[in-house]
Amino acid sequence: MRIVIVGGVAGGMSCAARARRLDETAEIIVLERGEHVSYANCGLPYFVGGEISDPAKLLVQTPQSLHAALNLDVRTRHDVTGLDPEQRVVTVDTPDGTMRIGYDALVLSPGAQAARPPIPGLDSPRVRTLRTVDDALALREQVEAGARRAVVLGAGFIGIEAAEALARQGLDVSVVELAEHVLPPLEPELAALVSDELRLLGIELRTSIGAAGIQQGAEHDLVALSDGTLLPAELIVLSVGVRPDTAVFEAAGVACERGAIVVDEHGRTSIPGVWAVGDATVSVDAVTGVRRPVALAGPANRAGRLVADDILRPGASRPIPHPVGTAIVRIGSLTAALTGVNRSALDAAGIGYRTIHLHPNQHAGYFPGATQLHLILHLRETDGLLLGAQAVGAEGVDKRIDVLATAIRAGMVVDELIDLDLAYSPPYGQAKDPVNLAGMIGENVRTGTLALWYAQDVDHVLADAFVLDTRSRAEFATGHLPGALNVPHTELRDRLDEVRTAAAGRPVRVMCASGVRSAIAHRVLAQAGFDSASLSGGILTLRAALGDRAAELLRFEGAMQDA
Amino acid sequence: MRIVIVGGVAGGMSCAARARRLDETAEIIVLERGEHVSYANCGLPYFVGGEISDPAKLLVQTPQSLHAALNLDVRTRHDVTGLDPEQRVVTVDTPDGTMRIGYDALVLSPGAQAARPPIPGLDSPRVRTLRTVDDALALREQVEAGARRAVVLGAGFIGIEAAEALARQGLDVSVVELAEHVLPPLEPELAALVSDELRLLGIELRTSIGAAGIQQGAEHDLVALSDGTLLPAELIVLSVGVRPDTAVFEAAGVACERGAIVVDEHGRTSIPGVWAVGDATVSVDAVTGVRRPVALAGPANRAGRLVADDILRPGASRPIPHPVGTAIVRIGSLTAALTGVNRSALDAAGIGYRTIHLHPNQHAGYFPGATQLHLILHLRETDGLLLGAQAVGAEGVDKRIDVLATAIRAGMVVDELIDLDLAYSPPYGQAKDPVNLAGMIGENVRTGTLALWYAQDVDHVLADAFVLDTRSRAEFATGHLPGALNVPHTELRDRLDEVRTAAAGRPVRVMCASGVRSAIAHRVLAQAGFDSASLSGGILTLRAALGDRAAELLRFEGAMQDA
Repeated sequence: MRIVIVGGVAGGMSCAARARRLDETAEIIVLERGEHVSYANCGLPYFVGGEISDPAKLLVQTPQSLHAALNLDVRTRHDVTGLDPEQRVVTVDTPDGTMRIGYDALVLSPGAQAARPPIPGLDSPRVRTLRTVDDALALREQVEAGARRAVVLGAGFIGIEAAEALARQGLDVSVVELAEHVLPPLEPELAALVSDELRLLGIELRTSIGAAGIQQGAEHDLVALSDGTLLPAELIVLSVGVRPDTAVFEAAGVACERGAIVVDEHGRTSIPGVWAVGDATVSVDAVTGVRRPVALAGPANRAGRLVADDILRPGASRPIPHPVGTAIVRIGSLTAALTGVNRSALDAAGIGYRTIHLHPNQHAGYFPGATQLHLILHLRETDGLLLGAQAVGAEGVDKRIDVLATAIRAGMVVDELIDLDLAYSPPYGQAKDPVNLAGMIGENVRTGTLALWYAQDVDHVLADAFVLDTRSRAEFATGHLPGALNVPHTELRDRLDEVRTAAAGRPVRVMCASGVRSAIAHRVLAQAGFDSASLSGGILTLRAALGDRAAELLRFEGAMQDA
Repeated sequence: MRIVIVGGVAGGMSCAARARRLDETAEIIVLERGEHVSYANCGLPYFVGGEISDPAKLLVQTPQSLHAALNLDVRTRHDVTGLDPEQRVVTVDTPDGTMRIGYDALVLSPGAQAARPPIPGLDSPRVRTLRTVDDALALREQVEAGARRAVVLGAGFIGIEAAEALARQGLDVSVVELAEHVLPPLEPELAALVSDELRLLGIELRTSIGAAGIQQGAEHDLVALSDGTLLPAELIVLSVGVRPDTAVFEAAGVACERGAIVVDEHGRTSIPGVWAVGDATVSVDAVTGVRRPVALAGPANRAGRLVADDILRPGASRPIPHPVGTAIVRIGSLTAALTGVNRSALDAAGIGYRTIHLHPNQHAGYFPGATQLHLILHLRETDGLLLGAQAVGAEGVDKRIDVLATAIRAGMVVDELIDLDLAYSPPYGQAKDPVNLAGMIGENVRTGTLALWYAQDVDHVLADAFVLDTRSRAEFATGHLPGALNVPHTELRDRLDEVRTAAAGRPVRVMCASGVRSAIAHRVLAQAGFDSASLSGGILTLRAALGDRAAELLRFEGAMQDA
């Protein structure tokens, strides 16, 4: 049996290795368009930034090492330009001319190309993407040749990593992003923390704006933004997303959806004998059921392995799991990570949900080095099913998101997070881990024990409700919402009459710094018959969610309201 | 309604706080025998070691703060000495004399006492336990008074933390442990790594031995071991386990099992109106069904919260989950953690299981700072259900154990670990995370794609099988098993006839450094018709599991066997 695999990174290589483990007799040919197979594409920004100094480290495997260990026939600079599904033959451009290669099973893992929006001047030699080892080498060369200014088009994960890498190399970096904030999949109240960190790294952010054109010059290019601003740059990184690299296969009759190959739960395409995996395929979102390509290494590797199973052990292989979409990025001293879906995906899918915010320490507060995590969970309104989670912080973000990704994969409801036996000792966590705490808050919300209000509703609240601020007098004096009454949560039980008089029949909207004290106060108020709700995530979340508007609202009044 | 809670740490305090959140009108009285409530008992060793300098940091809450925030009536130095379940009254020794306090609901959270084995001289004033803030203050005082030598009796989690704390303060520390290795719940092949690290910290380990007596002296005590050794010490820490502190309640008729209070799934004892939580209660092991007390803060807090629910929302509260038994400890630059059950518990319960070992990097190998994790999983033989996991390493241990604890709680089989979408970027993990890799290995074992042999069977293997070592020639030359043939895995396909001849009909037992190359070789051999198996965890695990015996077996032979 001859298995031909198109594409020698992630999904394709995982498929080839698994196929060999299952079958010593199969002929396994891997055709890779580029110079390298199985390279560390996620490591490229760190080579550009200098944290990885030896480019050889990026080459995890070579055709020689793969032949020696796994008897794979890996051919680089082999570009598949045609597919004849009837004859079961692919046409391949090679350094030695065009050839035709027959197959019994064909696995398409062509990946994605950088999206190239129709920006005039984008063909400037100073514009690079960051997808391949050659891209990384070229960027590093431009840095070493003395580039001083860089513009990064697109503030997604790779754009942010590229921006940090170039800033680390001493360049002045501007990031241009069409969306309202960096890392668009992050909720705005977390993305704001990432933006602050990027600015600390000296990176200039320009959001809600696009590039209108690139003017090539002798010394540098000028990136013209849609508002007329001109950004000079010796180096421009294009990272505005990717699109499946499937034209050859779609032309040959492989069914596609908006350019991505349609596959069934075993990775089979519409054509018998042809499978597909990775960034070029349509995935079904595990939470929303939405169909779109997912450009992540983990799901690609997983699919590659399962396709090998399906080819060589038909009937016995497990279905390819729907990706949950977990992703992570380092930004300076911070980490940002997410799993499952975010608000905009839930809104688009029409799924009713509740959101909770919390800011616990990553480990025991009394142990040296405690820092805050900023954690968001979305829960299905009907039953508390975990739909998505996001976190930003200096430490412990990856652990909590991985636990939550596991819980989402297991189909847990939020109450079940309370029951997780997570490892506790003061250097590692808390006796009530942030994930357990999220479970408690979520359960309280689900059962109505806790009612929440959200930062984005602040104008309605100011118009129609009575704001009760349960922080200490000293905290209150540093800035508070207009019209808020300050009753520290420890005094509330003795001052309920005062609150009743001041509220004058309006709903009471409670707030504190992070949402802990206001939740205690909410219970006191709710049991005393008030229409009460606690600000989710407190002023920490309000500040991050509303930015300048929050600064304007939380004005310092210099005096204690209730002195 | 009056709720009386006996014990103001962990479970008791969680119950009190939850009760108040649910009911503003309840009278909630917490009776604590000691000086302090809600203190950071897991932080005590770090205060002794000086990482936490201010003892006030250990007092997370005070009776005053709890009254202010939650209107709790917290009474310290109140020792419950009697219970009259008919009258619903407890008798309490207080600083002001004995009093009787009636209750509507009584929650017992008395915790455990340090076990005191019948060792003559154990009443020496130089002997301390490490259970309370006062214990920690006393140890710190002894250190500051110039103690130079310490003996720690018992090498469980707290004993190891105490030993490291005292070594950090400059003392010469010996640890004495009856079991064969430190941290007895750890498998020996992981405990060996912890022992090495403790020795690097300058700590002397004496295992498989007990203390026979303590001789008090003017300048120091002498700890006499059962082999006659005398260890001089100014300071002796007793940490040989705990026993439930339940005598008063058992005498009053509360049903107990070997001293631990029997509770149902809502924490109810045999007596109406009396609940119990925490270290003093019998838990049912989530994996084996074995009934025993579990002395961990997380399950105690969880049970306390759910008991408050059962008291105040009867019928609506969830059952208290069976603890999975996750625990973690820092040892110098290492972390050791475990979840679920270990070999001895599985053997005792008669559950058939398979074990896998792996040593992946905690993050991408090409990214700076990559270090090995040492990971063990136990799987149910019939279906691959996850039964237990353990890990030791410098980084990323807590994350993997928490993910596996979540998977165990979710009832996952090992195959499902492959499907977990864990956060990947080079600083945080690998595209195939160690947990995913464990899933792949486990699935291969479950389906028979991979056959394993284990280090503890090495003598049988040497007697009856043919050993094939698939490392490189250079690695082989540094030491190998007697009689082993060296065929680097990359040459195996071309040298199968040679292996067949040398094996002469015997089973082939393959090995390499960590189990990766031998697994590849196993697939080649199995498909060529050999009775083959790969050494689980490779020589790394063999060395750790067999210690001196491994050193003796893996003797350096100075020449290449197959030169």
